[in-house]
Amino acid sequence: NGVYEAVCASLNEAGLYFIELAGVLPNPRSGLVYEGVELCKKEKLDFILAVGGGSVIDSAKSIALGACYEGDFWDFFSDKARAVAALPLGTVLTIPAAGSEGSPNAVITHEDGNLKWGSQKNDLMRPKFSILNPVFSCSLPPYQTACGITDMTAHICERYFTHTKDVGITDRLCEAVLKTIIDASRRLMKNPNDLAARADIMWAGTIAHNNSLGVGREQDWASHQIEHELSALFDCAHGAGLAVVMPAWMEYVMDKNVMRFAQFAVRVWGCEMNFESPEKTAAEGIEHFRLFLKSIGMPTSFSELEIPKDSIDDLVAHRKLRGFPFGTFVSIDEKAMGDILQIAAK
Amino acid sequence: NGVYEAVCASLNEAGLYFIELAGVLPNPRSGLVYEGVELCKKEKLDFILAVGGGSVIDSAKSIALGACYEGDFWDFFSDKARAVAALPLGTVLTIPAAGSEGSPNAVITHEDGNLKWGSQKNDLMRPKFSILNPVFSCSLPPYQTACGITDMTAHICERYFTHTKDVGITDRLCEAVLKTIIDASRRLMKNPNDLAARADIMWAGTIAHNNSLGVGREQDWASHQIEHELSALFDCAHGAGLAVVMPAWMEYVMDKNVMRFAQFAVRVWGCEMNFESPEKTAAEGIEHFRLFLKSIGMPTSFSELEIPKDSIDDLVAHRKLRGFPFGTFVSIDEKAMGDILQIAAK
Repeated sequence: NGVYEAVCASLNEAGLYFIELAGVLPNPRSGLVYEGVELCKKEKLDFILAVGGGSVIDSAKSIALGACYEGDFWDFFSDKARAVAALPLGTVLTIPAAGSEGSPNAVITHEDGNLKWGSQKNDLMRPKFSILNPVFSCSLPPYQTACGITDMTAHICERYFTHTKDVGITDRLCEAVLKTIIDASRRLMKNPNDLAARADIMWAGTIAHNNSLGVGREQDWASHQIEHELSALFDCAHGAGLAVVMPAWMEYVMDKNVMRFAQFAVRVWGCEMNFESPEKTAAEGIEHFRLFLKSIGMPTSFSELEIPKDSIDDLVAHRKLRGFPFGTFVSIDEKAMGDILQIAAK
Repeated sequence: NGVYEAVCASLNEAGLYFIELAGVLPNPRSGLVYEGVELCKKEKLDFILAVGGGSVIDSAKSIALGACYEGDFWDFFSDKARAVAALPLGTVLTIPAAGSEGSPNAVITHEDGNLKWGSQKNDLMRPKFSILNPVFSCSLPPYQTACGITDMTAHICERYFTHTKDVGITDRLCEAVLKTIIDASRRLMKNPNDLAARADIMWAGTIAHNNSLGVGREQDWASHQIEHELSALFDCAHGAGLAVVMPAWMEYVMDKNVMRFAQFAVRVWGCEMNFESPEKTAAEGIEHFRLFLKSIGMPTSFSELEIPKDSIDDLVAHRKLRGFPFGTFVSIDEKAMGDILQIAAK
């Protein structure tokens, strides 16, 4: 898409010495992180520039931590230690999705045990700057575009579905960004070169995960936790995995706070409120969400993801390595995770 | 409201040496800034903690610039120089209104010439931290609460009314915060101790002016420019002045972009779109805005502000010291400013 050439030319023009580290894969692995850490230490590099999407940026963040640490960078993922220093990093974003360009987190898959785990939250990992030029996202194929859209939507939903009351402003902000994403997605599916829609999506992805939409409330993250097992074991795209898990999670938890799902239906999806049966409105919102995901080409079941239905026990067992329960809106134990995956597998 | 005692106790407990500078007035003056600059230089202070509302914070910001500068701090308001250093500052907010706790600007009235001017924008002035505890705003009387609400609403409107197209996400975010303010204001007018409403208003005030609602678009600020003359010459509350000026400005400029005002009416005020006559919808939105201001106890005419109608020429003449034209949505020259003030004086 021209970004690689543009970045190299800019660095050379500025007379800045740099060494390149290529080869980041989706669902980024620990191997490349260890390689990057060694490189930084050996060459005494003082800055990391991540050029790419979430996988590249998360790898760069992990390298930035590891480069300033005697031990194993994974300690900051397995909670064995807390990072107190990191190389500064900047990003040039090419894939609006993970929001890593504005967040203090990273997700890495450790090859020893195939563990896809999130890091501790640490402001040392927040990029010093991020360059968001929507032009660089225009060449993304529809499937990757849609995976990114699903990921950022999930980042908002994990913050939106909370029992915390009385944070009206955060609700409204979440709904504003969700409506923007829905509108821009429809335009992008018709015309992938709609630059205004690309720009809205790119900025939405950043806002969705820099926590400006999470102020003042408990958050959940259960759908992300469940999805991490899908992409760890089956290497599916994170966004595609979320498209399968998230609506299933919603159906499973809906009756714990019907009015919140009704608000989602009315304010985000424009449903009419059914005052006699808020449950119907709530269910209608989830159905709208699922249809939206289908409309942008996302899978919404195991079979579309090419994950066998009989893998549910394996997925639950693999999650045990990180531990149960998780989630706050509803606490998810082994049985609940299995039940949610059953809905997703339908 | 207990904040003074809480701050002193906290500083003493931490063993931090501090000197107090009291006496900031609304529409803060240059005299106290000069005094503060001298104090900082003499005592070699290395940090400023502003405890109060916008006037206190703007004074602190100006002192922070002046303390690191050989010349006159006013140079950064009159564009004679550009600040390259400032003392770091933090804030403890007590009046949600100006948004100064998150912004890189200040407004000071210079006593020599009675000039109420805004500073250059400079990130050096952005507070290193701001403590926003809505409890400290509960003792604000209704009039000051409403002035603050009007000021933050204006900060959003000055960003919302733009001809820049294709920034849907910023539109939606502006509308989200405006709807939150309207809803929370109604609750506060019924119950000044509604802490959730106080919290929404406090956070809204910060978001309204830290420029997260101004991303990607031309902004206007004409209403603020006009109001500064009102409060410079008549020392009215800034928010009250805005309540008089802003709807008048809207009426004056509406026909330059009817659909934008119709969007304001439909999305913010819940008006039905009149597809046969969008002008009617647009006008209805402005009327809703004016009624809202009245409902929270704000003046909407010169007489309610106790400003004589025959002062319009003086106001326009005084603005000449800063210069014409100003504003971007519509460029405001001397005649236009007079016409807008005529509407406001009705």
